[in-house]
Amino acid sequence: MTYAAPLADLRFALHAIADMPGIAGLPGYEEATPDLVDAILEEAGKLAGEVLAPLNHPGDREGAVFENGVVRTPHGFRDAYARFVEGGWNALPFDPDYGGQGMPWTLASAVQEIWQAANLSFGLCPLLTAGAVELLQAHGSAAQKEIYLPKMISGEWTATMNLTEPQAGSDVGALKTRAVPNGDHYLITGQKIYITFGEHDFAENIVHMVLARLPDAPAGTRGISLFLVPKYLTNSDGSRGPRNDLRCVSIEHKLGVRASPTAVMAYGDSGGAIGYLVGGENKGMACMFTMMNNARLAVGIQGVAIAERAYQQARAYAFERVQSRALTGDDGAVAIVRHPDVRRMLATMKAKTEAARAVALMTAAALDRAKQEPEDSERSRQHALLDLLIPVAKAWCTDIGCEVANLGIQIHGGMGFIEETGAAQHYRDARILPIYEGTNGIQALDLFTRKLLRDGGAAMNALLADLRAGLPAANGNAALGTLRRPLGDGLDHLERATGWMLAEGGESLERGAASATPYQSLFGVVLGGCLLAKAAGEAAQQAADGTGDPGYLDGKVKTARFYAENLLGESAALAAAVTGGADSLLALSDEQL
Amino acid sequence: MTYAAPLADLRFALHAIADMPGIAGLPGYEEATPDLVDAILEEAGKLAGEVLAPLNHPGDREGAVFENGVVRTPHGFRDAYARFVEGGWNALPFDPDYGGQGMPWTLASAVQEIWQAANLSFGLCPLLTAGAVELLQAHGSAAQKEIYLPKMISGEWTATMNLTEPQAGSDVGALKTRAVPNGDHYLITGQKIYITFGEHDFAENIVHMVLARLPDAPAGTRGISLFLVPKYLTNSDGSRGPRNDLRCVSIEHKLGVRASPTAVMAYGDSGGAIGYLVGGENKGMACMFTMMNNARLAVGIQGVAIAERAYQQARAYAFERVQSRALTGDDGAVAIVRHPDVRRMLATMKAKTEAARAVALMTAAALDRAKQEPEDSERSRQHALLDLLIPVAKAWCTDIGCEVANLGIQIHGGMGFIEETGAAQHYRDARILPIYEGTNGIQALDLFTRKLLRDGGAAMNALLADLRAGLPAANGNAALGTLRRPLGDGLDHLERATGWMLAEGGESLERGAASATPYQSLFGVVLGGCLLAKAAGEAAQQAADGTGDPGYLDGKVKTARFYAENLLGESAALAAAVTGGADSLLALSDEQL
Repeated sequence: MTYAAPLADLRFALHAIADMPGIAGLPGYEEATPDLVDAILEEAGKLAGEVLAPLNHPGDREGAVFENGVVRTPHGFRDAYARFVEGGWNALPFDPDYGGQGMPWTLASAVQEIWQAANLSFGLCPLLTAGAVELLQAHGSAAQKEIYLPKMISGEWTATMNLTEPQAGSDVGALKTRAVPNGDHYLITGQKIYITFGEHDFAENIVHMVLARLPDAPAGTRGISLFLVPKYLTNSDGSRGPRNDLRCVSIEHKLGVRASPTAVMAYGDSGGAIGYLVGGENKGMACMFTMMNNARLAVGIQGVAIAERAYQQARAYAFERVQSRALTGDDGAVAIVRHPDVRRMLATMKAKTEAARAVALMTAAALDRAKQEPEDSERSRQHALLDLLIPVAKAWCTDIGCEVANLGIQIHGGMGFIEETGAAQHYRDARILPIYEGTNGIQALDLFTRKLLRDGGAAMNALLADLRAGLPAANGNAALGTLRRPLGDGLDHLERATGWMLAEGGESLERGAASATPYQSLFGVVLGGCLLAKAAGEAAQQAADGTGDPGYLDGKVKTARFYAENLLGESAALAAAVTGGADSLLALSDEQL
Repeated sequence: MTYAAPLADLRFALHAIADMPGIAGLPGYEEATPDLVDAILEEAGKLAGEVLAPLNHPGDREGAVFENGVVRTPHGFRDAYARFVEGGWNALPFDPDYGGQGMPWTLASAVQEIWQAANLSFGLCPLLTAGAVELLQAHGSAAQKEIYLPKMISGEWTATMNLTEPQAGSDVGALKTRAVPNGDHYLITGQKIYITFGEHDFAENIVHMVLARLPDAPAGTRGISLFLVPKYLTNSDGSRGPRNDLRCVSIEHKLGVRASPTAVMAYGDSGGAIGYLVGGENKGMACMFTMMNNARLAVGIQGVAIAERAYQQARAYAFERVQSRALTGDDGAVAIVRHPDVRRMLATMKAKTEAARAVALMTAAALDRAKQEPEDSERSRQHALLDLLIPVAKAWCTDIGCEVANLGIQIHGGMGFIEETGAAQHYRDARILPIYEGTNGIQALDLFTRKLLRDGGAAMNALLADLRAGLPAANGNAALGTLRRPLGDGLDHLERATGWMLAEGGESLERGAASATPYQSLFGVVLGGCLLAKAAGEAAQQAADGTGDPGYLDGKVKTARFYAENLLGESAALAAAVTGGADSLLALSDEQL
């Protein structure tokens, strides 16, 4: 159950998919030189492999524990977090004015994959802090930034997001937590659930970002405000002050990510927790939107990460476990990787993981370009691309995390069902990813209504044209030559389905919504195939130029072909469901469901 | 988390898919009149709903416990088992000469679904006993039958199957447990793993069916013999005698079915456990084959069962949970079943569950006909059909169990990840099904080599012709009319893929094996669609005749259409992978996997 960061593949994907050299050429990112990028990936890989990964399985077995109002994380987690903070890792992509390192999100995303693959439960803590840092960087007052950002960026203090209440899950607008003005602050009362790392023993303070409603606020999402509610207040000199009126009521008993405490939080049991408004009254949802792209991409990256972890474990097992003779040999029992069906599972795991990694890093690159491109028009173009890609990066990559972890169990056979093996943990851990940070169904609706209908398909059609233009030419490489037909078909399917979503879905939101999930999957399947093909083209070029490891580069081409000939065919099925399936779904009455 | 046996759908499927009246017309099955069938289903539903289902979730939380060599099942399980035995349920399909009720397997399969849906962990105990009864009925000596069958058929004694050893999983031939002749019995020494209900507190005796190797046995599967090794020996008067030399070493810590003890068993620590040869020396594998069809079908039925259970739970939640306004309405938050994407998940769960049920019951009917048809030629024909269907019934239905349980979690959103909800248990429990009783990859190989190549595709081509001929005519029913094109396409895909498996796979076993899993899935997808269409045709006929509930019958037609237009499209993707995917898989070197 070891984990070795896939440095070669991350480097290759950063180059071939995310154009890391181009990103480093953007204003503010000049320090992200190839040497520094390499050094950062390598050091992250060390900490992940040596410290975080070994805690993953014991952490699951032990779980986070809640006793007498206090949460104890599993043995070793607290020390590991201290090393993470000491190494400066929490600060990687943040504002240098407050102690951040100002590295591109593209690089931070590759590093993020490493943390999450090593230990998904551990990785959740900095992931949540990052969202709060984003919020404060964008919307905090000067004083708030001064007090909170340095400690949150360093990781000395961690942070949480408090959105969900029992009656307000996907429908954030239904939340009831109240905030009453009281001098320079507000008094917060209410209960929040599913608060990741809402209470723990990693840090001396926890900064809760809480959505609440003012007494006279409009109904729904327009009446939501965002508050910073620290566990401990700060004294005027910035030191830690008295305890705020908030507490952890309990933590959940979960299917997976058991080492991460998921808290029920109570605010204001004794009159009201002190909260500081961030970003103006009733502007809470607008604030949340500024971090939503980053947070959703981060969850997509968790999908890539758990896929990579499950793949590494299954691969090791497949080469080690000896069972049955080869179908075509008489030499006694062989390692199961010799059996074609096991090879199919392993190749599927690998191809899907690499396709998901490519989608995630392409999205991360769009995020950087949307922020840092010097030209307004290019920034806008990249922003439109980013907005379009986000739901796919979140939903498709997390679906793949589950699928790949599922195959990982199957490769282990009976051993996969025994918890000591560890394969089952990945399967359990992965299962939260299609749910939180907006369920994958919510992502599909976002893709359909906000990303497709709103601009009349402009961003999508631009992407389709780019993908079509980007298919690699065969250039005498036979394997590369095999890619054009299936990928062309896939793009045709996606184009046809896009046309249906715009025309028929635009006409009837209900029919469009009925087709939104297969459409989103179709988008992912085809985009993933196109990006693998792009990587294959780059690999073939490098091989022709005589740079890089020939076996690895050839593997890139062959993996793209495997995907195109074995997995991309799903695009036909999904397109059929998108364009021809909604009516038969909507024909079923409640009683017939 | 209640469960109500789907009596109406089971009755309908027994009639429309399994031709239950025809089965009851076979010699020996005359007692299975419609009234008795109804009464049995209804009584089974009561016991399942009132006794077994309520224990399912607490049983998972408590788990089976191993202490001081003794296994304690969760609270209530032992009493529930006593009621199960008292009700005569264990005896349903067995030989009346030894206390069985001689009911058809088709009916027993419908009842089996009810037990397994109510409580998969509980259901494993009688499932294993049934396999041992089958073995003894077919291969036991008169004395063995006399002593053991009555108590095993009643369920007073339970039984186990001991095949797996650490080095011998899918490759049973690699087992090392030894049996040395010693007078009228053999002395057994060795260790077995993954022994379901190998030790427990349900019954006063446990009859272990153990595969072992004689000192001079040939290597591999040809040198395996089967032994009956009881936990307690019997005295000459048939009463329980002294303890045999065998013990439970430990039980596994598993992902799911945690209420069922999965034991490591040690035989012969003190010189050798007394075992009685069943079916002749070195005939162990031949004996196992007589029960393999039943056992694999039973596991397929477990797949249907967990799908039904997960569907019922998700359905209840979708109608109860209120969240977000409807896309097309302004009336405030609605039950989530109003959201098209949730409807899609629920319809998918329902359609797949019913398709899997149809495949399982069709297979059960072939099992009865292969045993009881009076004409030799028809028995042979049904046997060929049965052998062909078994791997699909096992693999496809268990894959569907996992898929449907996965959707069940997603419908629950965040609640699905919390163990108290119960949706996560179904997801965990289901995951063993594609693994045990021959992994689904082993099933695919069996389908390819033994069921397809061996008869040159004769049974398969006969089935394809039957399925094509059985597509319902539109008869003026518009919804029924929509089925013919997608199903015709699906059958074309399956036919083309079958041709490839026979020709190209016959030429190269390696390429065939590389395509065996997508071929098996394709078989399931198309067969499931055809059977839903058959049910739809029958429903339309009943509706035209004015018999039955019009809404339910119309739902059958609409479900078949939903499946044909939304799920059957996968057949194109799978056929493409079968016929065009093997080479790109086999092109990947070890290093490139």
